Amino acid sequence: MNKILVVGSVAYDSIETPYQKQEKTLGGSANYFSLSASLLASVNVVGVVGDDYNPEDLELLTSRNVDTSGLQKVPGKTFQWCGKYEKDMNEAITLETHLNVFESFDPVIPESYQDSDIVFLANIDPELQLKVLEQVKSPKLVGADTMNFWIESKKETLLKMISKINVLTINETEARMLTGEWNINKSIQSLAEMGPQYVIIKRGEYGFMAYDKASGGLFVMPAVPVKNLVDPTGAGDTFAGGFFSYLASLKTWNFDDVKRACIHGCVTASFTVAGMGVEKVKSLNLSQLQDRTKEYLKVVQVSGASAMAASVSNRDQLQ
Amino acid sequence: MNKILVVGSVAYDSIETPYQKQEKTLGGSANYFSLSASLLASVNVVGVVGDDYNPEDLELLTSRNVDTSGLQKVPGKTFQWCGKYEKDMNEAITLETHLNVFESFDPVIPESYQDSDIVFLANIDPELQLKVLEQVKSPKLVGADTMNFWIESKKETLLKMISKINVLTINETEARMLTGEWNINKSIQSLAEMGPQYVIIKRGEYGFMAYDKASGGLFVMPAVPVKNLVDPTGAGDTFAGGFFSYLASLKTWNFDDVKRACIHGCVTASFTVAGMGVEKVKSLNLSQLQDRTKEYLKVVQVSGASAMAASVSNRDQLQ
Repeated sequence: MNKILVVGSVAYDSIETPYQKQEKTLGGSANYFSLSASLLASVNVVGVVGDDYNPEDLELLTSRNVDTSGLQKVPGKTFQWCGKYEKDMNEAITLETHLNVFESFDPVIPESYQDSDIVFLANIDPELQLKVLEQVKSPKLVGADTMNFWIESKKETLLKMISKINVLTINETEARMLTGEWNINKSIQSLAEMGPQYVIIKRGEYGFMAYDKASGGLFVMPAVPVKNLVDPTGAGDTFAGGFFSYLASLKTWNFDDVKRACIHGCVTASFTVAGMGVEKVKSLNLSQLQDRTKEYLKVVQVSGASAMAASVSNRDQLQ
Repeated sequence: MNKILVVGSVAYDSIETPYQKQEKTLGGSANYFSLSASLLASVNVVGVVGDDYNPEDLELLTSRNVDTSGLQKVPGKTFQWCGKYEKDMNEAITLETHLNVFESFDPVIPESYQDSDIVFLANIDPELQLKVLEQVKSPKLVGADTMNFWIESKKETLLKMISKINVLTINETEARMLTGEWNINKSIQSLAEMGPQYVIIKRGEYGFMAYDKASGGLFVMPAVPVKNLVDPTGAGDTFAGGFFSYLASLKTWNFDDVKRACIHGCVTASFTVAGMGVEKVKSLNLSQLQDRTKEYLKVVQVSGASAMAASVSNRDQLQ
């Protein structure tokens, strides 16, 4: 079993959606990723928290066998994000960002983490993402995410980071922004040309696209239909956690594995969005995931579709 | 083989997209639908054209064995729509609408059309859609489309029309508008409760959703990835033409047939959007459709996904 290292934010979020509102609820990419990934893999987490960090929130991770020895605790307040969503929940509106202890975050990878097999660089300053890569020995697979802020302010460093990774996960809007190419089918290829072999574009309620540079293969899927959508915060990091933990259980990876990993990530994320913050993902178990995966596969599969292609051809010959 | 009747607009469109611009190009829902459907079925068309209508545009339909005897030719100019698309091509921006002869359109169904097996009421005034239904004998399947204008101005009549049909095809934005429900997974159910057994929601570049009221079954698929997207005008009516013509070749219909019909419609529409107006769909043949269907199925299918659900379960038992 491959061990996963995730480096990202640990936060208290204040979130308002058309359905619910919650103050200072546990959040941050490292939390969503770890809670999601720990269902299938061993996870090492690196991040920073302030002295206001609730011991129960740390206990939540350790109870899931997440190694939290890389979580630095420093004087000051934990990172805080305040945001809201309007009816179209595909885009978050940031109201306030209080970096607090995150402002001077300098990721130090404990020695016991340095031989991690899979590394996920969640959305943080690309300079720090590069710094993490310098500290790990020879990971088999490196993934990263980013956001509009870094595309606008540190594009050069960001491109350097992207050139060193194997898997890029990125939102559709940010894929367009980073490549300057609106057509997402071209954009995903341009992203792969920047370095990564696999590019995963996250499309919110419309699902995801995955691209394999080696074969030129594409995999496009809708999201799991969710009637009780409450709060999309963390869906992307939950997806990434599911994705990399699925791959962690395999020795080698081909594009079919990546496709199945995407499905696993997508299904895991469908739980996160049905509750505020980490509410749903923190109590998730694998049998719930299995049931949801079966339901999802029913929604996206049709029998006899290949035969259909053939029958259309027969009619052609009859004409 | 079931015969299809389509009633809709016949138009000359002026279209501007970020990629191309074209004045007075052949358009209208009846044209897109007929060109698409005639690849698999016999089509009867009802609509109205002015005395400026180019005989070659009529010949285009008759050369595809579309019966155009129900196309009324009256003094005046043919309906004209001027619209543009910005980078996000999921929504058209109407610049000008000249109804011309379409303003006093009174659909008369020729006697030879009255026994049509499948009827598609393209997006026209719901009062006229109802008038068409009064003139057909006992169709086995009735489908209809609509738009924001009728939702806002003739909602009561529209709901009456929807209560009488078997299949509703509608854009995602209009589904939300008509039901007042933003969550599309709830919205699609509300639409079915208005009457139709099957509801198809068209999501532009994000594909489609199909819902079966009887079983509560859902089918969600992305669109065919199109790198050479040029002009989305007519994609919805091309989809409908492909959808109903696929069903026309069957004696009875269940939800699996509806799913395959959606795939056929979706694949046909992927040709329309790769050219201005009817440019691509008018020269399309079934072997091109077959090839594209095979490519599409590769993009949306993954081997071993069901086994994946099972293996996730096994790991659960090991924990």
